[in-house]
Amino acid sequence: MVHHFEPTHYYNTIGSHKPVLHVSDGDTIMTSTVDARGQDNTGETVTRRGNPQTGPFYVENAEPGDTLAVHLDKLTPNRPIGWTRPVVASHIMDAEYIRTVAQDIPDTETLCEWEMNVEDKTVTLINPTNTRLGRMTLPMSPMVGCFGVAPSLEQAISTATSSNHGGNMDYRGFVEGVTVYFPVFASGALFHIGDGHALQGDGEIVGTGIEISFDVQFTVRVLKGKKSFWPRGENEAYIFTAGNARPLDQCIQHATTEMLRWLQSDYDLDPRSAHTLLGQCVEYDMGNVYDPAYTMVCKIKKILLENIGINTHSVHNDFSRI
Amino acid sequence: MVHHFEPTHYYNTIGSHKPVLHVSDGDTIMTSTVDARGQDNTGETVTRRGNPQTGPFYVENAEPGDTLAVHLDKLTPNRPIGWTRPVVASHIMDAEYIRTVAQDIPDTETLCEWEMNVEDKTVTLINPTNTRLGRMTLPMSPMVGCFGVAPSLEQAISTATSSNHGGNMDYRGFVEGVTVYFPVFASGALFHIGDGHALQGDGEIVGTGIEISFDVQFTVRVLKGKKSFWPRGENEAYIFTAGNARPLDQCIQHATTEMLRWLQSDYDLDPRSAHTLLGQCVEYDMGNVYDPAYTMVCKIKKILLENIGINTHSVHNDFSRI
Amino acid sequence: MVHHFEPTHYYNTIGSHKPVLHVSDGDTIMTSTVDARGQDNTGETVTRRGNPQTGPFYVENAEPGDTLAVHLDKLTPNRPIGWTRPVVASHIMDAEYIRTVAQDIPDTETLCEWEMNVEDKTVTLINPTNTRLGRMTLPMSPMVGCFGVAPSLEQAISTATSSNHGGNMDYRGFVEGVTVYFPVFASGALFHIGDGHALQGDGEIVGTGIEISFDVQFTVRVLKGKKSFWPRGENEAYIFTAGNARPLDQCIQHATTEMLRWLQSDYDLDPRSAHTLLGQCVEYDMGNVYDPAYTMVCKIKKILLENIGINTHSVHNDFSRI
Amino acid sequence: MVHHFEPTHYYNTIGSHKPVLHVSDGDTIMTSTVDARGQDNTGETVTRRGNPQTGPFYVENAEPGDTLAVHLDKLTPNRPIGWTRPVVASHIMDAEYIRTVAQDIPDTETLCEWEMNVEDKTVTLINPTNTRLGRMTLPMSPMVGCFGVAPSLEQAISTATSSNHGGNMDYRGFVEGVTVYFPVFASGALFHIGDGHALQGDGEIVGTGIEISFDVQFTVRVLKGKKSFWPRGENEAYIFTAGNARPLDQCIQHATTEMLRWLQSDYDLDPRSAHTLLGQCVEYDMGNVYDPAYTMVCKIKKILLENIGINTHSVHNDFSRI
Repeated sequence: MVHHFEPTHYYNTIGSHKPVLHVSDGDTIMTSTVDARGQDNTGETVTRRGNPQTGPFYVENAEPGDTLAVHLDKLTPNRPIGWTRPVVASHIMDAEYIRTVAQDIPDTETLCEWEMNVEDKTVTLINPTNTRLGRMTLPMSPMVGCFGVAPSLEQAISTATSSNHGGNMDYRGFVEGVTVYFPVFASGALFHIGDGHALQGDGEIVGTGIEISFDVQFTVRVLKGKKSFWPRGENEAYIFTAGNARPLDQCIQHATTEMLRWLQSDYDLDPRSAHTLLGQCVEYDMGNVYDPAYTMVCKIKKILLENIGINTHSVHNDFSRI
Repeated sequence: MVHHFEPTHYYNTIGSHKPVLHVSDGDTIMTSTVDARGQDNTGETVTRRGNPQTGPFYVENAEPGDTLAVHLDKLTPNRPIGWTRPVVASHIMDAEYIRTVAQDIPDTETLCEWEMNVEDKTVTLINPTNTRLGRMTLPMSPMVGCFGVAPSLEQAISTATSSNHGGNMDYRGFVEGVTVYFPVFASGALFHIGDGHALQGDGEIVGTGIEISFDVQFTVRVLKGKKSFWPRGENEAYIFTAGNARPLDQCIQHATTEMLRWLQSDYDLDPRSAHTLLGQCVEYDMGNVYDPAYTMVCKIKKILLENIGINTHSVHNDFSRI
Repeated sequence: MVHHFEPTHYYNTIGSHKPVLHVSDGDTIMTSTVDARGQDNTGETVTRRGNPQTGPFYVENAEPGDTLAVHLDKLTPNRPIGWTRPVVASHIMDAEYIRTVAQDIPDTETLCEWEMNVEDKTVTLINPTNTRLGRMTLPMSPMVGCFGVAPSLEQAISTATSSNHGGNMDYRGFVEGVTVYFPVFASGALFHIGDGHALQGDGEIVGTGIEISFDVQFTVRVLKGKKSFWPRGENEAYIFTAGNARPLDQCIQHATTEMLRWLQSDYDLDPRSAHTLLGQCVEYDMGNVYDPAYTMVCKIKKILLENIGINTHSVHNDFSRI
Repeated sequence: MVHHFEPTHYYNTIGSHKPVLHVSDGDTIMTSTVDARGQDNTGETVTRRGNPQTGPFYVENAEPGDTLAVHLDKLTPNRPIGWTRPVVASHIMDAEYIRTVAQDIPDTETLCEWEMNVEDKTVTLINPTNTRLGRMTLPMSPMVGCFGVAPSLEQAISTATSSNHGGNMDYRGFVEGVTVYFPVFASGALFHIGDGHALQGDGEIVGTGIEISFDVQFTVRVLKGKKSFWPRGENEAYIFTAGNARPLDQCIQHATTEMLRWLQSDYDLDPRSAHTLLGQCVEYDMGNVYDPAYTMVCKIKKILLENIGINTHSVHNDFSRI
């Protein structure tokens, strides 16, 4: 079933809020998200800033201990202008460098504006245009900055951060066509989504991607009895796991441990094979290093598993057939 | 001038050791390296284990405050069998996971052996072959694990770790065709090289790549008066900087700060342009997370600079013309 | 005014929950707390485990931007037996040490039991008694493990962790006679308290102090317009600030920055004096290193300020006169 | 035997340098150290700055795998004026705070000067005197900032940092009367000592204590076959271990693991007793958080061990009888 949902209010936390819609296993939801400052597709500020979330969506039959699969069907910027912050965050630079160049660091409050070209899939810097970058044009790559499910213990966690429930991971790999798996901590999973970026560098080191409102479409599936501990995902080429914490070293521990669990439970690898495969073939992508919790993603190419006779057909493939 | 150098002894530290050869700006050195355990191209153990280094090479006219450019001309495994450790390092996994699965973790001392196929550029697991991986074949990608120049203060720093002088960075991007730039801290720079890997996953999380002895060829250039703070590098597509420290958060600070300096000093970017470009276009690759100091690499695509009219022709291009 | 409040329910998050009682500036509350597993003064389990909190208490006239002062008048274990976990947490030991000694680490689930002697102010290990410790007796030092005010954005944050609103700091200095200052983020401040420990080592490295239910008495004051960023406190001898984050390095940054602010805004120190005083006289105490966020406390002796003619009379002194 | 040794040169690394003196097990050495900038007891600069070390002293019969005990007999400032840096290091403050207050942070290069009063055991700020601190007088507490033994692998490690060989730990507990134990990595142990502080706050957060030249006297003992992994120490009241690394979280792991080893190998504690004792009684002191590697100290009161019938008589007691 396909639901068209028009949001009327948004949340700045991911939590056990009253659901805006009840949907079933296999349903598709078409809706929209406002940008990080609460501006909608008309540019109007309709809610409080800070990655406001559309939802939560209650998925029938999802219970704690299950896993919720969310396939990102479509992510489309739905207004002409997005914005970015202009300065690398202080904690991303050497502390002593900040002190010595503080006067030369650009004004942190004057935002940049970027024009969307959805047909060409490009973005163009349109303000200011008097820097060396001029009217720089870059490829568009729409991605979800912040999404997830209600955390454990009826917590309501700020959309500025992330944890095992997902949240503000700002990973460039959360693009159209990807399937994301979240551990379920509350009845109905209570899925939230927001904070669209037309483009973003690794780490979101200026504190923003190109912030923009989205039209989004996604499809949900409940994996009954499937236990997971951290967000997982897959695309055509990779399976991956995400660890969210600080410092990054700890993200690596979470993501790597989750991958070891996954390879052994679902992909038929004995411990020695799982460890050896990771040793020589693992790849890591860096999500957010701006927020209170950082994100690191641990990836394995599916072809490596296929080459040794392991079937990587999965929920993701079912989604792709839709 | 081309030097053929046959090493007779090796060092387990990078330091102000007596040079094995004096070379000039622009010279090319053809030599060999032993593997991480001190085994040479015949498989014989010829020196103490721990990333033994060939060198140091004294480069005439390189003085503290200059930068040494090293172009990796050729990196070729020179014996038939390499080896890897079989277990993800304990500090890469969740601490509590280790405690609970300690009994099931594979024996950490039984190495894997891999066959080199230099013509096909592949490696094949040949021992053990009774795991789920069987005789898995992977693409070969020879890289330098540990190299660098003598550090400041006549320090002699273990090849197990890394710092601003380079060292055991274990970055998969240090392959043939790359130019690496090291800050010079001692007269003659005193370049060391060793620890070849036929292949390695990101992070060197099992503590080894596929460890193998190499035939290596490299060419050196002295960039007089060029000040740098951390290792830098470039290939056809990217310029990059490497930060070495712990935790990874600090590597990111070092590498990002060094990139900001470089973009502003050599690539004609005003501060706002440098910050904005990094914000939406930076990429990070993870080097070693196994050693006492970790490594993170900050990258920018050259095409982005070219597209806004900035010339990225550099020492690297000169090397490439050779 | 003195309120006697008997709790009927508890929260496992600190958040904008419905207040259990409205109190006024200057009021004193006498109430009780259950232990970390939800057991009350009779030993009965009356609520879900995980540092259940008594409250929240709505303090009239406390608004975001103000500071709430809470004086801990009395903290008294109110049942005969407390308990501790028996094993240092895995992430507090070297990762490789855990792997190699995992089999020898004591059973993590068999708790220790300790007898309270409130008159003598001692605790005695009573189960097991067949270890080398025998019936070891230690001085009692009752302290609050977890308390704080509702965080910003209507968040509800697990009592397993801590942040700028307070939370599970497990600092041994939060004893009777101390005044704690919390930044106010929500109308009424919404003060929560729980997780009493009869004794605890630095860091709460086994994951518990001696967990026990408490009779507690505290007095609140609203400091209108007093801006603070992190929990602060004072006792007869010290003023102190607490930073909560991970890694500990970041806690130090938060606590030290807060102390620099406080010394300059309230204690009449010019920047150079504040920096120089901290440089040679600062002391740090370590709170929790067990939880998702760690805690570090930055302290300055009041006598140092008095000796240079600075008045350290404060809200704390007013409380002490009561 | 007592040796009077007058240094003629100093090292800025701790390493396998040529010994300046050979001494025997039980010998006492009376010598002097210059301050962190290489200034001696006359105030003259006699060597390169950066914690220059007196030594190394070769202790006969000390071999890798042994432990060297060093009793700090006397530490006496030997000139009238010491100095400190005036500003908390940038990496000890919140990154964003630094950016916003950079202009107001005091000039980092103008040092403070302090007058020594060895008889009264006080220090007095004498320059500048126009700050709010005026001519502040503080209790003197002379301590060793940097000392240790030659590290493994013939490394020579900068005196700016620390590791398992000791080094720049800047722990306020290294005062007269303390016995320090170092793992021996090289024949003769090769003990170095320097960097005296008349006083220091926890963490050495301005990058210096009150830097001063010292007259020092110490006595050495070789503990044959005694294996240790990290520096240990003891005084009248405590046994303690030091972990050196970054971030602080890792220092805690090293120090706590070393204490668990020590309690079980030398103090007759079964694993459960060792873990339980640490859980409720451990104390941590913070050493340096300024340098590349930080330091954390894990302590247990001797009286706790005595109370359960464990003999804490040790090498330390033998020294104390001298």
